[in-house]
Amino acid sequence: MTAQIAVLNGDYIGPEIMAAGLKVLAAVTENENFDYDLHPVPFGGEGIDKLGDPLPASTLATCKQADAVLLSAIGGPKWDKAERRPETGLLEIRKALNLFANIRPTVISPAMRQYSPIRNESPVDFVIVRELTSGIYFGTPRETHETYALDTMRYTENEIERIVKVGFEMAMKRRKHVTLVDKANVLDTSKFWRKITARIAADYPEVTYDTSYVDAASMKIIANPGQFDVILTENLFGDILSDEAAQITGSLGTIPSMSKGTDGPALYEPIHGSAPDIAGQGIADPLSMIKSVAMMLANSFDRQDLSDTIMTAVDQAIDDQIVTPDLGGTATTDEVTDTIIKTIKKVG
Amino acid sequence: MTAQIAVLNGDYIGPEIMAAGLKVLAAVTENENFDYDLHPVPFGGEGIDKLGDPLPASTLATCKQADAVLLSAIGGPKWDKAERRPETGLLEIRKALNLFANIRPTVISPAMRQYSPIRNESPVDFVIVRELTSGIYFGTPRETHETYALDTMRYTENEIERIVKVGFEMAMKRRKHVTLVDKANVLDTSKFWRKITARIAADYPEVTYDTSYVDAASMKIIANPGQFDVILTENLFGDILSDEAAQITGSLGTIPSMSKGTDGPALYEPIHGSAPDIAGQGIADPLSMIKSVAMMLANSFDRQDLSDTIMTAVDQAIDDQIVTPDLGGTATTDEVTDTIIKTIKKVG
Ligand SMILES: CC(C)[C@H](C(=O)O)[C@@H](O)C(=O)O
Ligand SMILES: CC(C)[C@H](C(=O)O)[C@@H](O)C(=O)O
Repeated sequence: MTAQIAVLNGDYIGPEIMAAGLKVLAAVTENENFDYDLHPVPFGGEGIDKLGDPLPASTLATCKQADAVLLSAIGGPKWDKAERRPETGLLEIRKALNLFANIRPTVISPAMRQYSPIRNESPVDFVIVRELTSGIYFGTPRETHETYALDTMRYTENEIERIVKVGFEMAMKRRKHVTLVDKANVLDTSKFWRKITARIAADYPEVTYDTSYVDAASMKIIANPGQFDVILTENLFGDILSDEAAQITGSLGTIPSMSKGTDGPALYEPIHGSAPDIAGQGIADPLSMIKSVAMMLANSFDRQDLSDTIMTAVDQAIDDQIVTPDLGGTATTDEVTDTIIKTIKKVG
Repeated sequence: MTAQIAVLNGDYIGPEIMAAGLKVLAAVTENENFDYDLHPVPFGGEGIDKLGDPLPASTLATCKQADAVLLSAIGGPKWDKAERRPETGLLEIRKALNLFANIRPTVISPAMRQYSPIRNESPVDFVIVRELTSGIYFGTPRETHETYALDTMRYTENEIERIVKVGFEMAMKRRKHVTLVDKANVLDTSKFWRKITARIAADYPEVTYDTSYVDAASMKIIANPGQFDVILTENLFGDILSDEAAQITGSLGTIPSMSKGTDGPALYEPIHGSAPDIAGQGIADPLSMIKSVAMMLANSFDRQDLSDTIMTAVDQAIDDQIVTPDLGGTATTDEVTDTIIKTIKKVG
């Protein structure tokens, strides 16, 4: 069986870091009994430029048939005035592939502590499980009139149940703690989330479960991020908190993410933008994309071993300070990538 | 003319810090040609206990007739199972007094830098102007059904215009920069805010104006808070970001806030909760309430002079490390308050 991987190269630094990720994928799978085909297809800005659509039908078809999707950073000033902007493609692909669960690791490892803008010294290792295909992002009605506008935050029982289960399953493989983040002192949808989450929590007696209002959570992520294991939350709160959480690591250029549904391909992507200011200079940090590849191997292809090999090599490069300027280093994208590949080959 | 001040003592540490604030008010106004009457009325948990309602009708009537409202921290575990919880009173009083503008200063002064959990060293001095009586907090429909629930984020042109004007007027008295925070890449209401804000911005040619998505803003507040002057935003985003902003100061116990409408009394309150864990020990930090009193004198009674006297005395106490345990000190609420009063009397 040959793994089918859709490759969405992205914009500005997107293709640069995708190339790095794919080089590492080639290296780590060599002689490892893992065969794959790559299917590069246009998306985002590239989709607009080549086919007039941020998510062209042909791209979606390729993704649907793939076993996994690798997506690099998209968007940028070039398409600021576009009728349908590159980011629209993101919302559409999430919906079309039913990627209702967005998983974002937030880790401050000893080697990475130096980059963190917060003084906190305790270990930080939590995951945000964000609902990705419902809530105020997709709820109707959404209307703009002459004198008012409105959006609707809407959640069905089924939409909540499935993401809550992802959160608790995730906790079972970790430190067995779930924090539901909501605004249940104000919102009906939050109260509904609480009711359903409490019911499902009962099926996981080993998992401790608590709740936090979103405003309080935004403080705790700074004051005491070590307290979290799995943060479970709805789409909009997850958007805000996961970026805040990324920022406390101080190393946005190194963070991968996974978005998945119940079946069909999962999607792996860096959490950061396309960094137009440094595009073309060969200095973009490839770690987010390389770690996205690692996440893909572990989660879509059950190759935790290959994933671990990559992650160890990444940590080694950081320890050795072979890092790009965003992490205070002087290495190029290629140098970082080649260093990681060299470590992989030694180990392998 | 005698200033009429409604006093809502709050719960747990609420009355302790209110007493401190009122002592400072008495001291700073002595021989200053400022007469006032205090009208203590039950609210929040005290309202529930005494009159069965977090916002009793008599309390609201007193507030409506007052020139200003001083409110201390409310709520707590005692009323966790109450049918209408203390916080409900907050939402109701905001609406009833039409307090559509919530103003929250975020300052990291040299003396306070030691408390900040972020490593940032540049000066931080911004204000969040949060819309407080509309958006998803009050929008209808809000419904819970058997299998789904929904909330509505709704804004009228008029609701946006008036708060945007508050933001730009505020900027004119400061460093003349406004950042509108929204999620205009997703929400119709955000696009509507942008349109109206751009129109009003044209009336303030001296004010530079930019926009930020809320997820990006949650990063910037940590990465580079010095870039902000006035952050203008809708209710829910303001709730989350203003707590995050408070947290980067590391001194929640010292932060006041103001909520105001077009006419009628403004309301002044600490931003923190009622801290049931330390209630009754006499060690609650009174600075947030004392600074709320200062804000009231400047904004509701045009006595910037008295406000400055208080703020200078507060800074002095911090410089001298006469602070409560939350700021690493050993002073009691009374000791801090008396120290501040002593400084005021010396100056006066
Ligand atoms: C680009 C935008 C629509 C998107 C979102 O809000 O979901 C982004 O911020 C993200 O988190 O992937
Ligand atoms: C208690 C709650 C309803 C309130 C809010 O969300 O507005 C609080 O968090 C605040 O910011 O004053």
